[in-house]
Amino acid sequence: MTTLQRKGPSLDFKNGRVDLTHGGGGRAMAQLVEELFIECFDNDALRQRNDQACLAVEAGRVVMTTDGYVISPLFFPGGDIGSLSVHGTINDVAMAGAVPLALSASFIIEEGLPLADLKRIVISMAAASKAAGVPVVTGDTKVVEKGKGDGLFIATTGIGQVPEGVRISGDLARPGDAILISGTMGDHGVAVMSLRESLGFETTLHSDSAALHGLVADMVAAVPAIHCLRDPTRGGLASTLNELASQSGVGMRIREADIPIRQEVRGACELLGLDPLYVANEGKLIAIVPGETAERLLSVMRSHPLGKDSAIIGTVVEDSHHFVQMETSFGGNRVVDWLAGEQLPRIC
Amino acid sequence: MTTLQRKGPSLDFKNGRVDLTHGGGGRAMAQLVEELFIECFDNDALRQRNDQACLAVEAGRVVMTTDGYVISPLFFPGGDIGSLSVHGTINDVAMAGAVPLALSASFIIEEGLPLADLKRIVISMAAASKAAGVPVVTGDTKVVEKGKGDGLFIATTGIGQVPEGVRISGDLARPGDAILISGTMGDHGVAVMSLRESLGFETTLHSDSAALHGLVADMVAAVPAIHCLRDPTRGGLASTLNELASQSGVGMRIREADIPIRQEVRGACELLGLDPLYVANEGKLIAIVPGETAERLLSVMRSHPLGKDSAIIGTVVEDSHHFVQMETSFGGNRVVDWLAGEQLPRIC
Repeated sequence: MTTLQRKGPSLDFKNGRVDLTHGGGGRAMAQLVEELFIECFDNDALRQRNDQACLAVEAGRVVMTTDGYVISPLFFPGGDIGSLSVHGTINDVAMAGAVPLALSASFIIEEGLPLADLKRIVISMAAASKAAGVPVVTGDTKVVEKGKGDGLFIATTGIGQVPEGVRISGDLARPGDAILISGTMGDHGVAVMSLRESLGFETTLHSDSAALHGLVADMVAAVPAIHCLRDPTRGGLASTLNELASQSGVGMRIREADIPIRQEVRGACELLGLDPLYVANEGKLIAIVPGETAERLLSVMRSHPLGKDSAIIGTVVEDSHHFVQMETSFGGNRVVDWLAGEQLPRIC
Repeated sequence: MTTLQRKGPSLDFKNGRVDLTHGGGGRAMAQLVEELFIECFDNDALRQRNDQACLAVEAGRVVMTTDGYVISPLFFPGGDIGSLSVHGTINDVAMAGAVPLALSASFIIEEGLPLADLKRIVISMAAASKAAGVPVVTGDTKVVEKGKGDGLFIATTGIGQVPEGVRISGDLARPGDAILISGTMGDHGVAVMSLRESLGFETTLHSDSAALHGLVADMVAAVPAIHCLRDPTRGGLASTLNELASQSGVGMRIREADIPIRQEVRGACELLGLDPLYVANEGKLIAIVPGETAERLLSVMRSHPLGKDSAIIGTVVEDSHHFVQMETSFGGNRVVDWLAGEQLPRIC
């Protein structure tokens, strides 16, 4: 590309830092786009170098979803803001039963961010995108002055196509439906919090950050009648179940003993004063399905690597209050409410 | 919605401030989404309350584009970060000749932002979206601690469908093509800078921020053979022409005398030491078309309210260096290079 022929040396990805010119729309920004984003994400749409990507779609339903990622710190056990921004947005596409087609990425960078950190994040993001088979086809870069941001924020948007016959939505839970989750709860949030609080769990606890569209494709193929799918991210299982109960106008009964939680997560939660049901997950999903299909779906989920710890954790009931109630491990019963305050700021 | 029945009083949009709970994924965030975003944006997709919106599309080509908005200050003559984020992203969709279908919006809010400011911005954004006929169908809210952001950043993504037969791309400029612009240059950047520098031009200078998809639809209908369209935002006319020249592997010759610039913009640029050719626009476009269609396109552009000051400003030439050269008003000739440094930080 001529841009490169006419300018000076390559960017210094070893010792350089992002400055305001990298967001200015001129030569420095063009260089960053060439040497980092086009180089790493490496796909035809991006190589077109237009302000928009062009994609072929079939007639039907397209889903669109967006998420801003502001996680702190930028790197954590099991991932970083880059891989997280790919996984999280793919998952929101997948939760409609849709096949993800493409991602866009908007980078808001604080002046002074080491170019080495930015490159490491973009490489990780590109690796996550390639592993998932969902390209980052277009993007944008802005730089704000030092002290007006916090290293890096990324907003990713995803689009996908919904297969014919699939209709999955948060308002479709019905009394008698079974509630399943695809694995252990709280891994992501506790991994990040342990790092922040220097609890020294780094060697054992990792974020569960993962792209779930492969698991969802298997689930939809086996049980097309799935009613709801949602990933319990911020606010955790408790808040997400409350969202779904409220949206569908139903109540829920779950059993504490059936909710898989890692021993290390349980221990860290005790130390940190957290309830694992409110802690964020980034590679897990909740499925609500007609009761009679639950066992079949469970076996399909368990046979996928990302669903091996799946469990049936409860049922949907009639309840004009739309309460989520939990039978505790001690045989009691308690209402599991929405997250009230802010338990874990900047967890995603 | 039950969420609302089960919680306390409404948000205090008069004296309240955004706090970390509004991004926490719990009850406070649900309330902000209900009382502000769903209320203002008001469309079926958003009312579904899923983490993704579902849209019907026809078979063909879909374009996707994203932009982060970090403009400072948040409010400026002729708009605010909300309306700008709608116009800017619609324009990037339109620059492919596409019909915009929908927008998504990711809000990254600094703790402490007055809820009144956020509401004013969302109302403005909703008004811009409604006026353009392009709904904001899905979104996300994150809150970062005070001092880790700067009031509000918004990343909007747009999707649109390209009509059959239209093929517009930055690499299609050919020697002999005419270069047109849709109006005066530099209005947006100078309006924002004047405000920042307290130059006191507020009464006369306004941002040109506007959605150009209507103008583009007229242009594409009249001249389907348009080769390139691009909006000269950051880096201004000069950088954008250089981008196009580089992408298409051509040179350009433009005439200074034919580039419309408001007298107030010219005056402010002299005071501020700016070159209007490098100043951002947010409601203007560059069109590159086969020479023989230029006059017809010009007359179509001039008959649209957003193109009344359109002009033919030059031609595409063969040039292995891909230089943009300008015949100056004094009869000289100079190379118009890319923006080298950062002239106007956070102009969009």
